[in-house]
Amino acid sequence: MSVVRLDLAYDGTDFHGWARQPGVRTIGGVLEEALGRLLPEPPRLSVAGRTDAGVHAEGQVASFEAPHDLQPERVQRMLNGLFAPEVVVVQSSRAPDGFDARHNATGREYRYRIDTGALPSPFTARFVWHHPRPLRVAPMRAAAKLLQGEHDFASFCRAAKAPASTVRFLHRLAVSASGSRMEIRAVANAFLHQMVRSLVGTLVAVGEGKMEAGAMTHIIAAQSRAAAGPVAPPHGLTLVRVAYGRPQAAARL
Amino acid sequence: MSVVRLDLAYDGTDFHGWARQPGVRTIGGVLEEALGRLLPEPPRLSVAGRTDAGVHAEGQVASFEAPHDLQPERVQRMLNGLFAPEVVVVQSSRAPDGFDARHNATGREYRYRIDTGALPSPFTARFVWHHPRPLRVAPMRAAAKLLQGEHDFASFCRAAKAPASTVRFLHRLAVSASGSRMEIRAVANAFLHQMVRSLVGTLVAVGEGKMEAGAMTHIIAAQSRAAAGPVAPPHGLTLVRVAYGRPQAAARL
Repeated sequence: MSVVRLDLAYDGTDFHGWARQPGVRTIGGVLEEALGRLLPEPPRLSVAGRTDAGVHAEGQVASFEAPHDLQPERVQRMLNGLFAPEVVVVQSSRAPDGFDARHNATGREYRYRIDTGALPSPFTARFVWHHPRPLRVAPMRAAAKLLQGEHDFASFCRAAKAPASTVRFLHRLAVSASGSRMEIRAVANAFLHQMVRSLVGTLVAVGEGKMEAGAMTHIIAAQSRAAAGPVAPPHGLTLVRVAYGRPQAAARL
Repeated sequence: MSVVRLDLAYDGTDFHGWARQPGVRTIGGVLEEALGRLLPEPPRLSVAGRTDAGVHAEGQVASFEAPHDLQPERVQRMLNGLFAPEVVVVQSSRAPDGFDARHNATGREYRYRIDTGALPSPFTARFVWHHPRPLRVAPMRAAAKLLQGEHDFASFCRAAKAPASTVRFLHRLAVSASGSRMEIRAVANAFLHQMVRSLVGTLVAVGEGKMEAGAMTHIIAAQSRAAAGPVAPPHGLTLVRVAYGRPQAAARL
């Protein structure tokens, strides 16, 4: 057996997220089922970012074990024939033995887009959160700075899905704005469930003046989901990139 | 009675075009029906560009007669509450007496987007035609130049819907390209049914080397739909702007 790596882009709007679930359409589910036609049985895909319902990806990475004679190009052609442009296999390649898209990933970068204009746009509505009230950027940046670094992010994790350790290294949390468009980039070694959307929702609460930037320290210390701001809606979020290799390199994503 | 003008943007993907038709969802149809709730009866909307199924608009203009006491802001709020972000009323205003969005329009500008990259993008798929083969820009520009001007465009009109006169003034037909993205802009006093898509399909045939730029003169002279290239798909097309006022001003759109 050898390992095949898939680099994927998708519009998550009409999927119930990545993870296979009975009775609903998921990205992992449709891919695994389709791959089952090329393999003795449907593989179990390992994936770098298990995106939630409505979340998109530009640079998702998945991997699976396959017989040596399975050509990665054939996998790409078949999957794109079935699912493009909604899900696109940007690249399909043979990975080094033992490669695992999830366990070997050392960094993930997400982007969250917000439009603060009075009216929504029909052309960006699937990928941008329309928040028709101005947001103050300076306090959002101050708050973002306090959230950076290695912390226990339990306050930014959906409680029901918290793993044993909720410590993560948030290398970067950057807020940029241009006119009515705002973009928040988050880079970490790994993210907890709903972590980016909880960070964004909290920064937006700061931008609205409902929360002080300085409160971030207390929110982190509280280790309770109730301490942070609301969870931002999924459709503004896109998994941009996944890094493999040394953690130092991942931090520079 | 007075006249209300609506400036509209919409994603045409999930509509059967503008014109009301029994049993299908059309942009004009849903708007007229909703406006019927504010008025004694559903109005008949006059519209500058009767876009086809799957065609989008950034700057569509429609108008209707309404009692003097109907506030345009109320119309905007109600329609946006029902249909945004798929259809957005960007502006709703009282127009001069006698204003008619269709009959008073002196110019229309359309944009057609093409992506010639090997793979489609999930993020632009609704608004860009994915044509995964390179197109030669220079002959397309030469062909576009020959198509500009006042001509009988019968060869670029869907025969079944040809009006009495098929003479139109095509002020501008411009091809721009950057990497794998191509954009074709068309400005005219008015367009025939499927005219922009027929012009684009013909230019693409030239870009593929299937037709010579010099053939444009013969195609115009033939006055037959069969002489021109194929009709490009609707989803790459967007009505960008409508001009009112002197035709000279419209030509500078």
